[in-house]
Amino acid sequence: FIRNNGIPPEDMSPETWRLTIDGFVENPLTLSIADLRNRFEVITRRICLECGGNGRAFFDPKAKGNQWTVGAVGCAEWTGVRLVDVLKAAGVKKEAIYTAHYGTDTHLSGKPGKLPISRGVPIRKAMDPNNMIAFAMNGEAIHPMNGAPLRLHIPGWPGSFSHKWFNRLQLRDVVHDGPKMTGAAYRLPPHPVAPGTKVDPKEMVLIESMIVKSLITSPQTGLRLPKGEREVLVRGHAWAGDNVVTRVDLTIDFGATWIQAKLDPPPNPYAWQRFSQTVRLPQKGYYEIWARATDDQGRMQPFAIAWNPKGYMNNSMHRISVYAS
Amino acid sequence: FIRNNGIPPEDMSPETWRLTIDGFVENPLTLSIADLRNRFEVITRRICLECGGNGRAFFDPKAKGNQWTVGAVGCAEWTGVRLVDVLKAAGVKKEAIYTAHYGTDTHLSGKPGKLPISRGVPIRKAMDPNNMIAFAMNGEAIHPMNGAPLRLHIPGWPGSFSHKWFNRLQLRDVVHDGPKMTGAAYRLPPHPVAPGTKVDPKEMVLIESMIVKSLITSPQTGLRLPKGEREVLVRGHAWAGDNVVTRVDLTIDFGATWIQAKLDPPPNPYAWQRFSQTVRLPQKGYYEIWARATDDQGRMQPFAIAWNPKGYMNNSMHRISVYAS
Repeated sequence: FIRNNGIPPEDMSPETWRLTIDGFVENPLTLSIADLRNRFEVITRRICLECGGNGRAFFDPKAKGNQWTVGAVGCAEWTGVRLVDVLKAAGVKKEAIYTAHYGTDTHLSGKPGKLPISRGVPIRKAMDPNNMIAFAMNGEAIHPMNGAPLRLHIPGWPGSFSHKWFNRLQLRDVVHDGPKMTGAAYRLPPHPVAPGTKVDPKEMVLIESMIVKSLITSPQTGLRLPKGEREVLVRGHAWAGDNVVTRVDLTIDFGATWIQAKLDPPPNPYAWQRFSQTVRLPQKGYYEIWARATDDQGRMQPFAIAWNPKGYMNNSMHRISVYAS
Repeated sequence: FIRNNGIPPEDMSPETWRLTIDGFVENPLTLSIADLRNRFEVITRRICLECGGNGRAFFDPKAKGNQWTVGAVGCAEWTGVRLVDVLKAAGVKKEAIYTAHYGTDTHLSGKPGKLPISRGVPIRKAMDPNNMIAFAMNGEAIHPMNGAPLRLHIPGWPGSFSHKWFNRLQLRDVVHDGPKMTGAAYRLPPHPVAPGTKVDPKEMVLIESMIVKSLITSPQTGLRLPKGEREVLVRGHAWAGDNVVTRVDLTIDFGATWIQAKLDPPPNPYAWQRFSQTVRLPQKGYYEIWARATDDQGRMQPFAIAWNPKGYMNNSMHRISVYAS
C-alpha cells in the first residue's frame, strides 16, 4: 500500500543521497548509502507495515481521513542496516530520550521549509535491533512511492514512524514534537469513549505498538463454489505489533464454534505470519468465514470496533462470504 | 411478554372450561380443570418461554413481523399436570405421530370457524414429561392475556406451541397442518442464506428446539456509575431450548478477552438459569458489556445474526453500555 503525507521529492538519486544522524550524539554522522552498506552489517528481513488508520472505513460514526478498508498493510522483504548499529556509531548521549525522523518530501501547501510529517520514538524503541534503515525492497531498489532511495523501518508501530525518503534522524532530549506528533494525529483517547464522543486532543495519547490482527487473503469474498463442492482452503496473514501471533481460529457460524487454523511462525521477527485451513461447509448455502488471531499476551481480535475519534486501530475480525451451490 | 395470534376469548371461566383429548387415542377424554387436578399429579415448575421471533428487530434487511428487541422471553412459575400423564390416560394409538393444539381464541378477521393458530409437535416431543397443562401462573390463576384458564406448555420450543386458552389436543397420523404450521411461519431456510435472499416457503423447515441465549437484566444499558466507582455487578438469565447452559462469559473489550460468570443450575429442567459476575472496569470511560452463553452441546451464542427471511432465532449476544466517571 501507499500512503503519503506530503509531496514526494523529485530527487531520489541513491548516489548523492545522504543520511544525517545528529542531535544528542557524540559524533554526528553524514552517511552515503555506500557508507551504510560498507560500514554496517547488511541484513534482509520481511517487515509487516500497517497504517494506524487501516480499517477506518468501518467506523460508525465515520472518522475523517483515508477510508481504508483492509488493505493498508503489507509485508515486503527489506534489505538494509540496523538502525541501532548506526546509532551506536554516532554515540547516543544519555540525555537522548526520543528520536525525530525526517524525509525529503515537502508540504502539500508548497510552503518551503514546512514539513509534512516528522515523527519519532522513545529511545527504548529506537534501540530495538529490528529497526532498519533500508535501501532495497524485495531485492530491488526501493520504489519511488515506497520511499526511494532510503527508508526507515520501525516495525510493529504505525507505518508513519517508518519515514520514506529518509535523510535525517535527530536525537532529542524531549518527546519529539514534529508535525503529526501533536494534536490528534496518531492518538487515542486515554480511556474508552462512546461512539461519536468529542475528545480534547490534549488528553489523547500517542499510539505505539499496533495490535493483533488478521486478514483472509484467499478466497476472495463472494466466491461461489462449483456445485457440490464443500471444501474451501482459507489462507491469510496475521500479525500483532510488537508481539507474536500464537493462534488463528476460523468460524463459519458467526462465532458460535471455532476451527483452529494451521499457523506458520514468522520467518523473522516483525514479519506477518501465514495461516491456512481447509474449511468444510456442512451444506449448500451462504456462509461467512471470519478469522480471529490471538497474540502471545492472550489478546484476541475483537468482534466490534472500540470507537475512537480519528478511526485508528480497528483490529476487528475480517469477514468474507462464500456460497456453496 | 404477551403475544397473541387471534382475538382472546370472552369466556375464560375455569368452572365450565373443558379440555378435549381426541384423534388417534383409545379413550377420548373431556376433562374439567377439577378433573385435571384430581386425576393427575399436580406439579409446579419454572418454564422459560420465548417467542421464535425474539430479537427480530435487529435483522438487516428487516424481517416482517413483531419487531421484538430482547423482551419476548420470560420464565414464570407454572402449576398444572403433565401432558404425558393425560395422554397416557387417553391411550395414544400407535398411528399417532403428531399432536394438534387448539385454543378458543378467534381469528382476527372475525370469520367464525377460522382458526388464528393451531400448532402441534411430533409425538416424541409430546411425550416429554416436562410438558405441562397449566392452570396457575406464579401461584395465581393464569392472567387472561397469558391464556386463562388453561394453557399448554411445550418448553424449549417456540412459544407458539404453548397454546393459550387451551381446550383441545388432537392426536394425528400426519404432520399437523393447522394455521402457522404451513407456509413460512416458524420456518427457517433449509440451509444458510445471504441477507435478503427470497426462499420458497415449501423448502423451509419447521423450527423445533430454540437455541442457546442470554440476557443481561442488570444493570440497565446506559448506566453511569458514581465518580470513581469501577465495579459493576452484572446479572442476567441464560437458556438453551432443550439443552442446558453450562457457562456464561462476559466481555468488556468487544470480545478480545472473556470473564467467566457464576452460573446457577436451573431450579428444574427448562427454567432459565441465573448468572452473575462483578466486573471491574479498568479506568473511566465507555464500556460495553456483552454476555455469551454456551450450552452442553458446546454451542455458543454467535456475534452476529445468521439472517433468515422471517427473522427467527436471533440468539446473537446481548450488549449493554456502562459509563465509568
